[in-house]
Amino acid sequence: MSVGLLPEGLRDRLPPHADALARLVWRALDVAQAWGYERVSPPLAEFEDTLVGRLKSSRPQDLLRVIDPVSQRTLALRPDITAQVGRIAVTRMAHRARPLRLAYGGPVLKLKATQLRPEREMMQVGAEIVGTDNIAAAREIVSLALTALERAGVTGITLDITLPDLVDTLAAGPFPIEAGRIDRARALLDAKDAGGLAAAGFDRYLPLIDAAGPFPQALDRLRAIDAGGVLASRIAGIEAITTAVAGKAALTLDPTERHGFEYQSWFGFSLFAEGVSGEIGRGGSYTVLHPDGREEPALGFSLYPDPLIDAGLGGKPRQRIFVPLDADAGAVEGLRADGWATVAALDGDDDAAALGCTHRFERGAVVAV
Amino acid sequence: MSVGLLPEGLRDRLPPHADALARLVWRALDVAQAWGYERVSPPLAEFEDTLVGRLKSSRPQDLLRVIDPVSQRTLALRPDITAQVGRIAVTRMAHRARPLRLAYGGPVLKLKATQLRPEREMMQVGAEIVGTDNIAAAREIVSLALTALERAGVTGITLDITLPDLVDTLAAGPFPIEAGRIDRARALLDAKDAGGLAAAGFDRYLPLIDAAGPFPQALDRLRAIDAGGVLASRIAGIEAITTAVAGKAALTLDPTERHGFEYQSWFGFSLFAEGVSGEIGRGGSYTVLHPDGREEPALGFSLYPDPLIDAGLGGKPRQRIFVPLDADAGAVEGLRADGWATVAALDGDDDAAALGCTHRFERGAVVAV
Repeated sequence: MSVGLLPEGLRDRLPPHADALARLVWRALDVAQAWGYERVSPPLAEFEDTLVGRLKSSRPQDLLRVIDPVSQRTLALRPDITAQVGRIAVTRMAHRARPLRLAYGGPVLKLKATQLRPEREMMQVGAEIVGTDNIAAAREIVSLALTALERAGVTGITLDITLPDLVDTLAAGPFPIEAGRIDRARALLDAKDAGGLAAAGFDRYLPLIDAAGPFPQALDRLRAIDAGGVLASRIAGIEAITTAVAGKAALTLDPTERHGFEYQSWFGFSLFAEGVSGEIGRGGSYTVLHPDGREEPALGFSLYPDPLIDAGLGGKPRQRIFVPLDADAGAVEGLRADGWATVAALDGDDDAAALGCTHRFERGAVVAV
Repeated sequence: MSVGLLPEGLRDRLPPHADALARLVWRALDVAQAWGYERVSPPLAEFEDTLVGRLKSSRPQDLLRVIDPVSQRTLALRPDITAQVGRIAVTRMAHRARPLRLAYGGPVLKLKATQLRPEREMMQVGAEIVGTDNIAAAREIVSLALTALERAGVTGITLDITLPDLVDTLAAGPFPIEAGRIDRARALLDAKDAGGLAAAGFDRYLPLIDAAGPFPQALDRLRAIDAGGVLASRIAGIEAITTAVAGKAALTLDPTERHGFEYQSWFGFSLFAEGVSGEIGRGGSYTVLHPDGREEPALGFSLYPDPLIDAGLGGKPRQRIFVPLDADAGAVEGLRADGWATVAALDGDDDAAALGCTHRFERGAVVAV
């Protein structure tokens, strides 16, 4: 019988994982709220064409489509919430003062899984600042991402910083490359191919390869590259950002990393956690498009906490205590206030141990099962 | 330009409503967790045929369908989570000791809106006991639903109790009706059509019409009907359930109400809140179907909190305080610990009042804006 069989990439989250995920999301968003970020909650599906127009890292062919007999149009399930938040910022919240701080959390759906992430439905949690993308904003976004993870019980975090438009900036300035060859230089830098860079005549870009790796050495090597004011202001920016989060994460620099940052401007970052393969989040500076064509600077991050839960992070559930049929309601409420999950007997046969209780409430006392 | 235009029945939740909804859901599920309910989180979509087989109150034609090129089958977006929780209880959690207590919360999607509820995407939050449907279980489920609403800041609740299989039970016992005429009797009772009941020869059912209304009068009238043991045990059950929730809700009885309770067995209830039109939740006893054909008793409730949020319930957001660029990080953390939402200046032009701040943090002091 096929009952219980789910489509590839869609799954049931069972105890204790479902609870751990909800707790992680709640705690992360509770931190965002305390930092002045107001929550928005866009719908799970939109008109396909509206959604596609705002998606940056997803392509139309990555979308799960929904047939909507009511509108007689094709809807798409959102593969990303950031684009929806951008839409809200420039439409229904366009009149609100800037910087506009928004937070969000909810499921997203992708057409296809990847080898690293076999799930097609995943949780996305994030925060965005719209209207400001200066260093203070970057510092706040990075600090918020790390604090949210910390409060959610995630440890062993690595923050990997990148400068998405660095090659473009150098190529247009101190280390000239004609426009048609910039992609080639970028690909060689992505591959950390020193020989290829030299052979192609991109010698001046070679020191950028060595400027990847753990702080502070990598930043020192970036500082040693003589490219005038371009690097100086960026280094000052990175220093200001990383100083604010000292002790909250291991820091690495990958100045020319472009993969997944194609739509970021001067600043980007990835988040990793010990024992979890692949990114757990990412962020950076970008622009949102207004209906009148104007572009507005923005800066934000998204976390994808499912792999953290699969790795056993996200906090522990309450300990369970079995409560007999005739227990005093006030005393049971007291146990809950003390942090217990109370499991009430519903008939005489209920078995404390089988119901996962480590303790039993007996004549007013907490007794180990 | 159509940017910002969403499909009918799908909407953006903006501040402060998105936050209020998330807070209400979190608090309700936090209460369930403290009562020993473990959270499960089924996927947003399943194979259409699997989902349809378990849906009780939704029909296949009520589903939004998704084209899935990966499985090459039609998926359906869930219109209800209870059916998915039932599936989990009899498959992946079939081996777990009973009573199995499960809780859930997440969005559901319907093909069509109704006049009363124009939204097609709505939040559903609930808890189910699988394996026991006795009075103790009913008392716990009703208490949990009311406590969850109370903790979530919802006031003015009415609990309306119904006995879904009462007419069947009376018809098969003390007040005989041949099987083919039971639906007719039920329809007349639903319409509270005393004349029709008398004309159709269902005179003995007439007193049930008067047994609808506020407690304790309605229950007294039900008690006055001489139908032998059938009513006595039900009245004792209702008394045990309602005694446990005295003071938490206004109580009404509608013993023959069937609408929406077609799949409930001996006990059903609806929840209403002052100032909110229509039900905000419902629950009762039912059965879940195992893969081997066995039916297992269950009892639970679902809340649909969106209308509560639209009515302004669900608690207030943190008050916002503007924090200057050079503020001490420890002091700012202290403000958050005191319950403030801190809104940091990101550059010199940021305007406290425009950013929704009622206060400003100035030289270590909280000052009204």
